[in-house]
Amino acid sequence: MTDVLHATEIHLARRPQGPPVPADFATVARPIEVPPGQVLVRNAFLSVDPYMRGRMNDGPSYVPPFQVGQVMDGGAIGRVVSAPPDSKLRSGQVVLHNLGWRDLATGPEAAFRPLEPRPGLSLSTYLGALGMPGLTAYVGLLDVAGLQGGEVVFVSGAAGAVGSVVGQLARLHGASRVIGSAGSDAKVEHLLRDLHFDAAFNYKRGPVLQLLTEAADTTGIDVYFDNVGGDHLEAALSLLNLHGRVAMCGAVSRYNEAGPVPGPANLGLTVGKRLRLEGFLVGDHAPRMEAFLSEVGEAVADGRLSADETVVDGIENMPGAFIGMLRGDNVGKMVVRVGD
Amino acid sequence: MTDVLHATEIHLARRPQGPPVPADFATVARPIEVPPGQVLVRNAFLSVDPYMRGRMNDGPSYVPPFQVGQVMDGGAIGRVVSAPPDSKLRSGQVVLHNLGWRDLATGPEAAFRPLEPRPGLSLSTYLGALGMPGLTAYVGLLDVAGLQGGEVVFVSGAAGAVGSVVGQLARLHGASRVIGSAGSDAKVEHLLRDLHFDAAFNYKRGPVLQLLTEAADTTGIDVYFDNVGGDHLEAALSLLNLHGRVAMCGAVSRYNEAGPVPGPANLGLTVGKRLRLEGFLVGDHAPRMEAFLSEVGEAVADGRLSADETVVDGIENMPGAFIGMLRGDNVGKMVVRVGD
Repeated sequence: MTDVLHATEIHLARRPQGPPVPADFATVARPIEVPPGQVLVRNAFLSVDPYMRGRMNDGPSYVPPFQVGQVMDGGAIGRVVSAPPDSKLRSGQVVLHNLGWRDLATGPEAAFRPLEPRPGLSLSTYLGALGMPGLTAYVGLLDVAGLQGGEVVFVSGAAGAVGSVVGQLARLHGASRVIGSAGSDAKVEHLLRDLHFDAAFNYKRGPVLQLLTEAADTTGIDVYFDNVGGDHLEAALSLLNLHGRVAMCGAVSRYNEAGPVPGPANLGLTVGKRLRLEGFLVGDHAPRMEAFLSEVGEAVADGRLSADETVVDGIENMPGAFIGMLRGDNVGKMVVRVGD
Repeated sequence: MTDVLHATEIHLARRPQGPPVPADFATVARPIEVPPGQVLVRNAFLSVDPYMRGRMNDGPSYVPPFQVGQVMDGGAIGRVVSAPPDSKLRSGQVVLHNLGWRDLATGPEAAFRPLEPRPGLSLSTYLGALGMPGLTAYVGLLDVAGLQGGEVVFVSGAAGAVGSVVGQLARLHGASRVIGSAGSDAKVEHLLRDLHFDAAFNYKRGPVLQLLTEAADTTGIDVYFDNVGGDHLEAALSLLNLHGRVAMCGAVSRYNEAGPVPGPANLGLTVGKRLRLEGFLVGDHAPRMEAFLSEVGEAVADGRLSADETVVDGIENMPGAFIGMLRGDNVGKMVVRVGD
C-alpha cells in the first residue's frame, strides 16, 4: 500500500474576456495515481509566460488552446520522485518539462528532459535567462536580427524575461548602444543602473516616437527586438537606419485585444530603408539550445549577465502571478515556487 | 562651324498635389552645346517609372527630389552621336544611362554604359524586362523572397513592368502556382491567356481578401511580391503559409497619398506564422546584373518570357505616358519612343 498522492492543479475555469481575472481560474486538489511505467515529478518552479494568454482563447493559434475545465500546462522544472526500473531517470534527477500549472506531474519518460544545473544557480534560472525566454532572446537577436558589432539595439519590454536578456546579450556581442523601454520609472532605473542599458524610457510618460527619438537621436537604431507591437513598432520603423532589422517576438500590447488594431502607418518605410521584419517562434530554434546554454550559462555563472526574476510563492498564487505578469508587475522572469 | 543642336526636354514645372496633371510638366526646346570632352547621345527610348512620382515631391527620400524648373532625369537608352577621340565609345554604340526626359543627352563618358543588345530585340527591352524593372523582379523574387521550387507565388501589379516578369520568372523557377492581381478585366485576361498565370483577379471587383482567398484557397501562398501595399498586403498576410516571405518592392497605391495611411491590421500574424517582410531597392543589387541579363535575356530571346511593353511615341507625350502609367493604363513596361 502506498500513500495516496494529492496534487494541486490550476484549471481554466472559463475563457477570459479581455484581461484575465481570478475567476477565470480554478485551483483544484485531487488524488492522483502514477500509471505503470510512468515518471512522477515534484515540481520546484512553474513558469507563467505571455504566450499563455493566447492559449486561453479558443480558435486557431500556433499552439493549441487550453481546454475549459482542464489543467493548464506550461514550462516547469522539478525533481524526479519515482521512475520505472527501466528508466534512465533516477530519483532526485532535475528535469525540465511542459506539465506546469500543477505541483506534481506524471508522464512518460519522454516528457521530461534531464538537466545538470550549474552549481550555485537557482533552478528557476532554467525557466528564465537559461530557459525558453533566454533562448528566445538569443536566437531573436543573433540569428533572426543578425546583430553585428557596433550596431545600436532597441528592445521593448526591456525589463521582462526576454527583454532583459536581449539588452545584456546585445552589449556582450558588441552593440555600440543599447536602448530599452519599460512600463514604470522603477524599471527604467533598474535598466540603467543594474543592467547597464545606455538609455531607457518609461513608455507611459509620452508618445513612444518622441521618447525613442530622444534616446536614439544621433544614432538611429539598427536592430529592434519587438516584444510589444503597436506604437513601439511604429516608432522603431521611423528610427531604424538603412538595412535595419526587426525581430518580431510578440505583441503583448495586443494579447488582450478582442479585435484587430491598425498596423503601423509607416510600414512603407520598409522599402526605401530596406528593412527586414521577421517573426519567429523559439520552438523552431531548438538546435541552438546547446550553444545558447554554453554561452549564456557561462555569462550568468560569472556575473556578466544578470538573470533577473520575480518569484511568487505557492501554487495557489499562480493565477495572480500570471495576471500580474500580463500587467507588467514583474521584473525579469516571473516564476512560481511550488517546491524546495 | 557646326549646326546648332536643339534638344527637347521635359521639366518639372511645379510639384504635384496628389496625382500629377499635365500642367505639372513643361516641354522645353533649347539649343545645346556639347562641352569639350563629353559624349553626345541621341536617345531612342525613355523610361517612365513609378518611383519617379516620389521624386516629384520635396523632402527626403531614397532618391533626391527633382528640382522645379529643371529637367527631370531617369532611365534611357540611345546611341552615341559623338564622343571625344580618347573615348572608348564610338559613334552608333548603344548605351544605357540615366539622362532621360530629353531626346539629346550630353555627359561624361562614365555616365553611359555601353551595351551589346541581343539581335532581334527592341532596344526598349533594356528599359523593361531586361532593364531595371526586370532586375527588380529577379532579385526580389529569387534573392529577397528566396523562391523555392514548388511554392505558390502571388504578385500584385502583375500586368506591370515588374509584376509581369515576376509571374513568368516564378514559373520558370518551378513555382507550383502563380497568382496575379491587376486593375482591369482586360489585364486579367492577358495574365491568364498570354502570360500563363494559374489564377488572376481584378482587384477593383471586390475586397482583395475575398478575391485572393478564392484564388489561393486550397494552397495559401508562400511568397508575396508586393508592388502596391495597402489592402493587398493585408490580404496576403492573411493567406501566407508558415514561413512565408514578402518582397516589398513598392506601394504604388500610396505614391499619391498626402499623409500616412493605416498599416495592415493583421501584421501580428508575422510572429505565429514566422513571416519575413523585406524591403529592397534594385540599386543595391547591381552585382546580380550579369546573371540576370544572361538568364532572363536567354528566356526573352527564345520566347519563354514575354517582354510586355506599352510604347508611346514622341517626347511631347511623355508627361501623359507617365500620368497614364501611374493610373495603370500600361500593360508591361511603359516606354516613350523618341528616336529610331
